[in-house]
Amino acid sequence: MEAIEELQTLLKKLPGMGGKSAARLSYHLIKTDESYNRALGEAIATIKEKIHPCPICGCYTEHDICTYCSDPSRDRTLLCVVEEPQDVLSIASSESYNGLFHVLGGAIDPLGGVGPDSLTFPELCRRVDEGSFREVIIATNPTEEGDTTALYIRHLLQDKDITLTRLASGLPIGGDLGYADKLTLSRSLRGRIRI
Amino acid sequence: MEAIEELQTLLKKLPGMGGKSAARLSYHLIKTDESYNRALGEAIATIKEKIHPCPICGCYTEHDICTYCSDPSRDRTLLCVVEEPQDVLSIASSESYNGLFHVLGGAIDPLGGVGPDSLTFPELCRRVDEGSFREVIIATNPTEEGDTTALYIRHLLQDKDITLTRLASGLPIGGDLGYADKLTLSRSLRGRIRI
Repeated sequence: MEAIEELQTLLKKLPGMGGKSAARLSYHLIKTDESYNRALGEAIATIKEKIHPCPICGCYTEHDICTYCSDPSRDRTLLCVVEEPQDVLSIASSESYNGLFHVLGGAIDPLGGVGPDSLTFPELCRRVDEGSFREVIIATNPTEEGDTTALYIRHLLQDKDITLTRLASGLPIGGDLGYADKLTLSRSLRGRIRI
Repeated sequence: MEAIEELQTLLKKLPGMGGKSAARLSYHLIKTDESYNRALGEAIATIKEKIHPCPICGCYTEHDICTYCSDPSRDRTLLCVVEEPQDVLSIASSESYNGLFHVLGGAIDPLGGVGPDSLTFPELCRRVDEGSFREVIIATNPTEEGDTTALYIRHLLQDKDITLTRLASGLPIGGDLGYADKLTLSRSLRGRIRI
């Protein structure tokens, strides 16, 4: 197989990459700077050996303990529970949260074969028992699986002496009422706030 | 800089790759098979050293001479002139052409700083003089630059004993009259054929 075809075959396996995009990208890489190609190739080839889950919260890190868990300036009375490691970055980059994180590793999805046993609920309970948290914010996705997972966490933690909260659902900022789906509108009505 | 951020910064430099796409892709690479990452990384890092332009036609190849120029079953009386190396693959994969190719390296674009001097017109004239071509098919893009380039080639080759043709412009197959732009419609009217 020619080198270009091999590169295109590999690129086509990336999510959202069709045949035309892979072709365009491969010709871009042939025209671009060689040192960039080497840096990108090296970064892709070695990402999995550099990155591992933080043993405390489960988010991706290069260090023994992740930057969030080891940062003494973060509020250790707040715990935000998310589904995936990338959700940590989304919430951290909103710059509205300064507490700790807990990554479940997914959401309960019986049809998809994900039961509570495959998620990090025991670690969550242990952290709540051993830590000094006063509030646990459930930041699972506003989907059926995320809702089920949130209910399960409420069931697990309801006897502990902590406040349980969930991220607000409603209209996205910059959105348009005309484009909002019925469920989002109904949630934003139920969750309406006094101004 | 953390490895994930570094990977995302590099991915973001790819054409059509925004911040969100780069983030999604980097997390996909962390979850995917390590041997795939190594293969893709290696393919990206080494593509430029494996690939070079064919010294005869200018399309990309790994060999001394490209597969088209060295294929004895191709029709050596037909020459198709294209702008970029990737255009060779597009035309070859249409399976409607069995002749040779010539890559110009771009199209004449005075505003973009591309004059005739930076394209491979001398090589084209030499090949036409020394070869046994009976037809030269101009397959530049149906754009202003492509049209200018086609006119320039006509000017260069008009005194030679060859037929000069240009790819037909018109409605794309599967297209819809209602969505066709005025220029395409006008071209497909001017180029109408008897049925």
